[in-house]
Amino acid sequence: MRSARRRLEPATIIVFGGTGDLMERKLLPALYRLAEQGLRVEDSHVLGVARSAGLDDAGYRAWVRRALHAAGLWSEERSRAWCDRCVHFQRVGGDRSDELAALGRRIESLEQAGGLPGNRVFYLALPPEAFPGVIARLGEAGLHRSRGWTRLVIEKPFGRDLLLAQELNGLVHRHFAESQVYRIDHYLGKETVQNLLGFRFANPVFEALWNRDRIESVQITVAEPIGVEGRAVYYERAGALRDIVQNHLTQLLTLVAMEVPGALEADLIRNEKVKVLRAIQPIDRDQVVFGQYARGRIDGVERPAYREEPGVAPDSRTETFAALRLAIQNWRWHGVPFYIRTGKRMPRRLTEIVVTFRRPPVSVFEMIDAEAINPNRLVVTIQPDEGFDFHVEVKTPGSQMRLESVCLRFRYSETFAPLPDAYETLLLDILRGDQTLFVRADETEAAWRLYAPVLEHPPQTHSYPAGTWGPREAKRLLRRGQRWLPA
Amino acid sequence: MRSARRRLEPATIIVFGGTGDLMERKLLPALYRLAEQGLRVEDSHVLGVARSAGLDDAGYRAWVRRALHAAGLWSEERSRAWCDRCVHFQRVGGDRSDELAALGRRIESLEQAGGLPGNRVFYLALPPEAFPGVIARLGEAGLHRSRGWTRLVIEKPFGRDLLLAQELNGLVHRHFAESQVYRIDHYLGKETVQNLLGFRFANPVFEALWNRDRIESVQITVAEPIGVEGRAVYYERAGALRDIVQNHLTQLLTLVAMEVPGALEADLIRNEKVKVLRAIQPIDRDQVVFGQYARGRIDGVERPAYREEPGVAPDSRTETFAALRLAIQNWRWHGVPFYIRTGKRMPRRLTEIVVTFRRPPVSVFEMIDAEAINPNRLVVTIQPDEGFDFHVEVKTPGSQMRLESVCLRFRYSETFAPLPDAYETLLLDILRGDQTLFVRADETEAAWRLYAPVLEHPPQTHSYPAGTWGPREAKRLLRRGQRWLPA
Repeated sequence: MRSARRRLEPATIIVFGGTGDLMERKLLPALYRLAEQGLRVEDSHVLGVARSAGLDDAGYRAWVRRALHAAGLWSEERSRAWCDRCVHFQRVGGDRSDELAALGRRIESLEQAGGLPGNRVFYLALPPEAFPGVIARLGEAGLHRSRGWTRLVIEKPFGRDLLLAQELNGLVHRHFAESQVYRIDHYLGKETVQNLLGFRFANPVFEALWNRDRIESVQITVAEPIGVEGRAVYYERAGALRDIVQNHLTQLLTLVAMEVPGALEADLIRNEKVKVLRAIQPIDRDQVVFGQYARGRIDGVERPAYREEPGVAPDSRTETFAALRLAIQNWRWHGVPFYIRTGKRMPRRLTEIVVTFRRPPVSVFEMIDAEAINPNRLVVTIQPDEGFDFHVEVKTPGSQMRLESVCLRFRYSETFAPLPDAYETLLLDILRGDQTLFVRADETEAAWRLYAPVLEHPPQTHSYPAGTWGPREAKRLLRRGQRWLPA
Repeated sequence: MRSARRRLEPATIIVFGGTGDLMERKLLPALYRLAEQGLRVEDSHVLGVARSAGLDDAGYRAWVRRALHAAGLWSEERSRAWCDRCVHFQRVGGDRSDELAALGRRIESLEQAGGLPGNRVFYLALPPEAFPGVIARLGEAGLHRSRGWTRLVIEKPFGRDLLLAQELNGLVHRHFAESQVYRIDHYLGKETVQNLLGFRFANPVFEALWNRDRIESVQITVAEPIGVEGRAVYYERAGALRDIVQNHLTQLLTLVAMEVPGALEADLIRNEKVKVLRAIQPIDRDQVVFGQYARGRIDGVERPAYREEPGVAPDSRTETFAALRLAIQNWRWHGVPFYIRTGKRMPRRLTEIVVTFRRPPVSVFEMIDAEAINPNRLVVTIQPDEGFDFHVEVKTPGSQMRLESVCLRFRYSETFAPLPDAYETLLLDILRGDQTLFVRADETEAAWRLYAPVLEHPPQTHSYPAGTWGPREAKRLLRRGQRWLPA
């Protein structure tokens, strides 16, 4: 259970990829903000690890300073003190195992100097191909345990298919217990995603409606207006299914669809999520539509086609859009289609869950068919403006019985202080030892297993203009009378 | 069914009490606004009827002009033309039946002059003691029918107990068919009240929750900050039970509790309302609390006690507050208490329905009992700021699972143009011949029958300070852990 009861103990946070993009943009700002909040993270030490030759503690601190400055977090007195006291650098260049032994000695000396209890977080902020090597060498160097606790954080993507995920899990488990492993899906760190659980299980009105008797369909959209943005080498090999569907979209789906757990404890929740994944029917080809963006306009600016992006093959068939219709074969969801989609170069940034309830069985309104009554909808917006919208029908003022859809609305930003960044939440949970928001080995394998048929026999890739909600072909996934929201 | 399909035909609207308060403040502005909207009401004629000696058409039009002016509706060109062409006066002073014959001749001459089809509305905007005399004389003079249709509109209160209501209905039915009779409860003309039906039957999510399995209790409050305001003579004989509970509050209750009708047709809806009234368990003394306001402050101003108001007996026991707990003995509502209350000199004007849903059966949240989770609530505000609030629990941002009640909110005023006045709605329905929003004979009798035990053996009247939500004793109607909302 995610709670303050778990003790927060100082630790050494060893970041592989310590000069990388993720460290610069996400981890470092999050670590610094947590240190500022004084949640004992101020007593923790950060040890950046990278290949960079010629970098020492002083040089690394200067880099950290620039990064915090760019994030608008640098304040001369406070930040410098933290930086000088708690930030360190260790070069680990090649594959030689004595380098890991040196890393181990460095960590021990930091722990001694800082009076730390020997708790360690190894954070792999690395490209996925580097995971196996580092994990193996950590294990071989005996760094999988320490005087205190040792935790291993692995960024997504976790494998690139079922086989590789299984191999990676096998390697991890050779050296680490599953209770030490924190597989990141940063979507799970977002407040609204966590709130899905709170919302479902603290509001019996919705839980009462949360089933095949009341729900017609569920849609989940993860859209971004950006293109491949310098990640072409990675993206050409990945595509939307690996990049977004297998992890983020599938995580959102399991949180929407899971049964009520006995308690909000990490393993009880993850058991329920795995149950959902296993209940999803094998995916047929006609349940998937792939797309790739062509030229088009977003916000009035002409955008190049995916195949025109630097680093992309001119005949690339990599999907930048994927839409699927999934069927969950259990008592709660039989017959309720789950439509999920993601795409690059969509009209705007949007992560949204739309739950469409069934229409009234008959209409009591003269001249209004039951079919013509708009269905009730619950829209959970995860980004950019977190909140809930509950679409209901009201009578329009006037002497006739005319119905109009209006919206019962709630926005976090209007009630609460700004939401913490997902990485802040996740780092705090790692330090507390709370695995609720992290993906378990069997969960990631179940997700890869689900999409294996699609990865093995990918469908045709249809073109769509940048600035649209994807190829027209995505409509054929829907039942008659349904539409993508938004579309 | 309330619809535009019913033809709107010009008519002569004969208002008894043509120089009275209701005519001045409500009917005349409503008639004028309808005429302005050109809904054929511009072709209708208004004939004011009153005892006032020495008043002629010209004098009456001057009175009308002042009334419209005071209502902010007078515009020289347009209003004068309507006033001169369509507004008339006829004196009916005493009880002589030849005066009614003269009234009949006057109506006929207006119809001839105006080329009207002979449709007539007799609107009794009179004190209740005048109803029987006028109804009898209308019938005796043969004015209960005409070339076109004839409709009789009776203002509340309709009777002052079951016996008198039965007598009055008997008299009405001696001359008029029930299909000619429009018993006004102006609450039913309010948009939000009508919208209750639209809301319930167009939104399957709420209808799915609308029963004893999901609802813990229903509260309905009609509160006003004003005191007896010059109506002491009437009020001393009436009291809150007759003035508000038997009509407005009971109407709201039946609309909340009724079953789905086959269609939104007047008699089908009224059948369902009567079914609810008949299913309410006889009221025991311990289900009622009466109160009377003592001195107190509202908005910082000291207010006199009820017994200090001019025209009120210094030892009056008339209730200015009534609260009841009702039990509806049917499949839908068994075991769900309906708490209704009304009062004068309450902190503010408020008409509100609060539906409290059951709490979750168990809590999955560590450190939060199921009992400690706030129940979901749907609040329907009928005045002053019409709208819906749906109270749900969300997780507060931060690393702990803390819940907070927030509100999914909708306000008519933020979406629609100003709502029409209740009397506009009701007059239009009368002219269209739509009885949906009017109280049927058996309905009014069923309501009186329900409250007969309380009227016959009224409970003790407890004192409450002006500016509070009533006497403390009202709390004992509630189950443990419940509270009046607001309180």
